[in-house]
Amino acid sequence: MDIAHALELAHRASEQVRGTTSPNPPVGAVILDSAGEVAGVGATAPPGGPHAEVVALQAAGERAKGGTAVVTLEPCNHYGRTGPCSKALVDAGIHHVFYANADPFPSAAGGADFLVEAGVETHFLNQPIRALQPWLEATVLGRPHVTLKFASTLDGFAGATDGTSQWITGATARAFVHEDRSKRDAIVVGTGTAISDNPSLTARTDDGLYPHQPRRVVIGSREISPDSNLAELGFGQYAGIPEALSALWDSGCRDVLIEGGPTLAAAALRLGVVDQIQAYVAPALLGAGKSVLNWPQATTMAEIMRFETTAVRQLGEDILIEMKRKDH
Amino acid sequence: MDIAHALELAHRASEQVRGTTSPNPPVGAVILDSAGEVAGVGATAPPGGPHAEVVALQAAGERAKGGTAVVTLEPCNHYGRTGPCSKALVDAGIHHVFYANADPFPSAAGGADFLVEAGVETHFLNQPIRALQPWLEATVLGRPHVTLKFASTLDGFAGATDGTSQWITGATARAFVHEDRSKRDAIVVGTGTAISDNPSLTARTDDGLYPHQPRRVVIGSREISPDSNLAELGFGQYAGIPEALSALWDSGCRDVLIEGGPTLAAAALRLGVVDQIQAYVAPALLGAGKSVLNWPQATTMAEIMRFETTAVRQLGEDILIEMKRKDH
Repeated sequence: MDIAHALELAHRASEQVRGTTSPNPPVGAVILDSAGEVAGVGATAPPGGPHAEVVALQAAGERAKGGTAVVTLEPCNHYGRTGPCSKALVDAGIHHVFYANADPFPSAAGGADFLVEAGVETHFLNQPIRALQPWLEATVLGRPHVTLKFASTLDGFAGATDGTSQWITGATARAFVHEDRSKRDAIVVGTGTAISDNPSLTARTDDGLYPHQPRRVVIGSREISPDSNLAELGFGQYAGIPEALSALWDSGCRDVLIEGGPTLAAAALRLGVVDQIQAYVAPALLGAGKSVLNWPQATTMAEIMRFETTAVRQLGEDILIEMKRKDH
Repeated sequence: MDIAHALELAHRASEQVRGTTSPNPPVGAVILDSAGEVAGVGATAPPGGPHAEVVALQAAGERAKGGTAVVTLEPCNHYGRTGPCSKALVDAGIHHVFYANADPFPSAAGGADFLVEAGVETHFLNQPIRALQPWLEATVLGRPHVTLKFASTLDGFAGATDGTSQWITGATARAFVHEDRSKRDAIVVGTGTAISDNPSLTARTDDGLYPHQPRRVVIGSREISPDSNLAELGFGQYAGIPEALSALWDSGCRDVLIEGGPTLAAAALRLGVVDQIQAYVAPALLGAGKSVLNWPQATTMAEIMRFETTAVRQLGEDILIEMKRKDH
């Protein structure tokens, strides 16, 4: 198997564990034996468990000797709850290491240097890995990576003027949202949404809950009824976005999803903490209604907030547009 | 060359003449010789000129004998300004005819029957041809096909609250709009847009005008200044959309593009004459501003206007979402 395919395999393995590894990164690793055949695949275990390289090495066993490791992130070099992965690779007799991203975390970095010094041929692929982006950006920012999600008609309305509401988007898009939730550390809503919609904020399919459930977080000071779905399932409440992000960071969250409503979305944008936007757009028009952003003041074109389109995909009849900040 | 490739070639030829053939359909035709090699390609000439089949037969000359014709529309069977194409195919010695769409126009139809009776093996492919859709729908509706185009931010604003404006979408999307204009019979705007923007409504590249220019049409009763760009280039003005569509139909237009502004767009939607929507969406947010639709009354979710997504494409940073009515 060539390195590009092995990296794709490692990436897929890492996607499977997204949401379960924080504060550690969701990493994927593939070990190829000396003949270039796949000997082991691994992904980061929950905190306290082995890192991806160690999981893959265990699967490969003796076949790792003289083999190649392909990893989505530079192997770590520090003694934390687990030993350093760079040393584990050397001890297993790995001859070549390919890694897609450099480790930005000061106390873990240096893995590549260690490998080179130990005589391992080490290659930095410098290739973006979707599953790693939130963790990488959070590590640089020193706060959780924030994705703002909203669903609207093509003319920008999340609901009708009279308060009536129904699903704007179709079943395919809604199923995608639940899968996406199952990969996040936390889902955040405002008290307005928590009170009016009585959401569960769970990640589920028609057959039940996903194995991983994100933390449920409410922002605002209004009281959430003890009879609500959120009270039954458990949730955290914070007065404002900065307090919430700070507390979530401290408790290990790196990848959070703000799901609304329009007041919280506007506040997050004004604070400048929105790193990514997921806009689910339905091929429908309402003419008038509740906007996706509750923006009290008038605007001028100079204030337009521009983002960079990173992905566009059709989900049934609907379109998901993913964007990131222009500056990173 | 196989039939699918020949049809694709015919389709491309027909795209080249869109906008120049009305009230005739923009048709493409390919003649394959008896060995299956391309002997001639043709597309509909401007009204009064030869139809696509005749153009392709002329290019093929003697090589048409025993050959195959692949056409985007059923060959016509009537004596109009030109003789029937079905007879021309028989006279040229064509043995096989493949056509993608049936002719919905009563006085032209019957071409396939004529061919079969003349001993030609005739196959109806029943395949949609993008360049033909507006003409086909117009013929069934008895009025021009109407495409509503707008450009907006992701939260549905075409401009800022204070009236300031600049391009919402980028250069790639704007170039695409001009190419699209060059394929239309007419471009329609309201008096509000005509007065405030002083548009030229031409189809142009950086190097100058496209060979085909759509007709310029203004809807509303307010006077357009004799010093305006439109007055200089020439335009038609009508009090309302029904009058405009009726006059455009009578003068041969089959494919018109409504470009705005929000009052005209809302009126066309309320009249139920919008057959297709082209939404150019920029990865940007404004929070507040001028909506794409000027919708005076409150709404309920029961009134949502749903469309069917037919194409999504990224144009630089922007996204073009194309939709058609749900009912046809």
